[in-house]
Amino acid sequence: MESMYFEDGRLFVLDQTKLPNEIEYFTPKKKEDYYYAIKSLQVRGAPAIGIFAGYAMALLNEDKRKLKEYLDSSRPTAVNLSYATGRMLKAYEEGKNLLDEARAIHNEDIDMCRKISEYGLSLLKDGDGILTHCNAGELATSKYGTGLGPLLLGKEKGYNFHAFTDETRPLLQGARLTSFELEKAGIDVTLICDNMAGLVMKQGKINAVLVGTDRIAANGDIANKIGTSSVAILANYYNIPFYVLGPYSTIDYNCKTGDDIVIEEREAAEIKNMWYEKPMALPETKCYNPAFDVTDNELITAIITDRGILKPPYDISLENIRDND
Amino acid sequence: MESMYFEDGRLFVLDQTKLPNEIEYFTPKKKEDYYYAIKSLQVRGAPAIGIFAGYAMALLNEDKRKLKEYLDSSRPTAVNLSYATGRMLKAYEEGKNLLDEARAIHNEDIDMCRKISEYGLSLLKDGDGILTHCNAGELATSKYGTGLGPLLLGKEKGYNFHAFTDETRPLLQGARLTSFELEKAGIDVTLICDNMAGLVMKQGKINAVLVGTDRIAANGDIANKIGTSSVAILANYYNIPFYVLGPYSTIDYNCKTGDDIVIEEREAAEIKNMWYEKPMALPETKCYNPAFDVTDNELITAIITDRGILKPPYDISLENIRDND
Repeated sequence: MESMYFEDGRLFVLDQTKLPNEIEYFTPKKKEDYYYAIKSLQVRGAPAIGIFAGYAMALLNEDKRKLKEYLDSSRPTAVNLSYATGRMLKAYEEGKNLLDEARAIHNEDIDMCRKISEYGLSLLKDGDGILTHCNAGELATSKYGTGLGPLLLGKEKGYNFHAFTDETRPLLQGARLTSFELEKAGIDVTLICDNMAGLVMKQGKINAVLVGTDRIAANGDIANKIGTSSVAILANYYNIPFYVLGPYSTIDYNCKTGDDIVIEEREAAEIKNMWYEKPMALPETKCYNPAFDVTDNELITAIITDRGILKPPYDISLENIRDND
Repeated sequence: MESMYFEDGRLFVLDQTKLPNEIEYFTPKKKEDYYYAIKSLQVRGAPAIGIFAGYAMALLNEDKRKLKEYLDSSRPTAVNLSYATGRMLKAYEEGKNLLDEARAIHNEDIDMCRKISEYGLSLLKDGDGILTHCNAGELATSKYGTGLGPLLLGKEKGYNFHAFTDETRPLLQGARLTSFELEKAGIDVTLICDNMAGLVMKQGKINAVLVGTDRIAANGDIANKIGTSSVAILANYYNIPFYVLGPYSTIDYNCKTGDDIVIEEREAAEIKNMWYEKPMALPETKCYNPAFDVTDNELITAIITDRGILKPPYDISLENIRDND
């Protein structure tokens, strides 16, 4: 279940807004189709957006500089988006073949995900029970994913894991996306509500927790989907390894600790109204809807990157894999 | 916002299935109306069901023995229900005034809740941030409630608390009921998703956690709504007091530890389909939907009953308040 693929000169893109009820690939034509696909979350996940924008730059017959600006404005905070369009623009100015460059971005992501998945898989045993939170799978990347990578690669290699997937309120990425893609990959998966994670740990059903990450600070604190830090505290209480998986590009060496990471707040309607037939709280009831939280490095058993498995103390292990620049 | 009241010879009952969108009191007439009200959760919460059944036994002109059996079958597991109907039947056989007996059950519940609320309030300070999980308020009892009692009684006495309410998936009692009744009582309340409880604790917004309980074992382990044990682990990690509030009648001295408590499993549709416009996971995706979990006594700062505030070691403090029989 790939988020997109290029075949016979055409790009096929999975419309993620229709999951899990419909599986529909579409081919964007005009630049507006690409813009809308990102804006409306038909394509989501930072790596997937970058790959998608790379193909847009290659396939659209437009002024490349203006096109970059236009695409970048579809999700201004996505770093991978402007990275990919910037790289494509540079390739254009250097007279390179743009389709080759877009495919290179795509293939590098597959390579990165595969490395993370291999490293992650080396920490698991056949038959393990694995808890996941949010979605860091193929749908958010190219293939395998990061947080889900060891499960999907493991399945290919004949491992039989038992996955438990937090539904991940309020946007339900765990229910709508993770349980969907694990089910489609033939992995044994059980969907639970976020508040059930502690109980399945207590019952001995979980051997390891795997999560992705949006940012890794220089001291090993990590930002990820809201609820991640609570899962880490529960895992810690029940002596279950808690693994964070993300590419080298997610490490922000300028960010000293998690305290420097600003938490995005989103609107109350996501909690009270979204998905529902009727509102679930009064119009006047306040909601607090933080999109992310920060997990302290002391709760993390290992950080798994495409450059290897990092162990505490993270300030040193992260510095050891740092590029010289 | 009382769950029911008796006035001018009529019982007025709040239809909780219509909350938070409509506030509608109705007056049951036939025995089928009472049965349906319990079965369909128009009336819910063990104490509220007991009070309601007491009035049914008093007001319906039926064979009392058959009526008790009929009402008891509406929710076979609710201990308070058969307790109340049994007490009414005994009063009938002793020739007592049945309406007086029903009112006595009602008033004893108000008295019990008030005592718990007073004890609980003595542990809080004006201005405290309070986290709640599920619903143990007036709607589930007669007045004040148990878990929410200190907030509602405190409001009457001029305290200004800042309540944070877990929405409590999958049945959303925190969103639909708790945030509703705190809002209506004029208490500052903020609704959050279950997976946000850890973050508000980390941010220093929470001074105490208050929860109700369905059963208290002889060693102080307690059963309550799914997710309660995770909240307790998070509170423990952040050094926040975790208080459990429930009446003496909730203590099960025959239950040695929480391991003896069987966890009710409910259907997958509550997670995947209920409330939603469209299903949120594939039809073939398994769900695990436990309704309760057990919180270990070591995570509980105090158990607050109508017989006083109990501290660890709970095997001793619980034994100290035990009736001789």
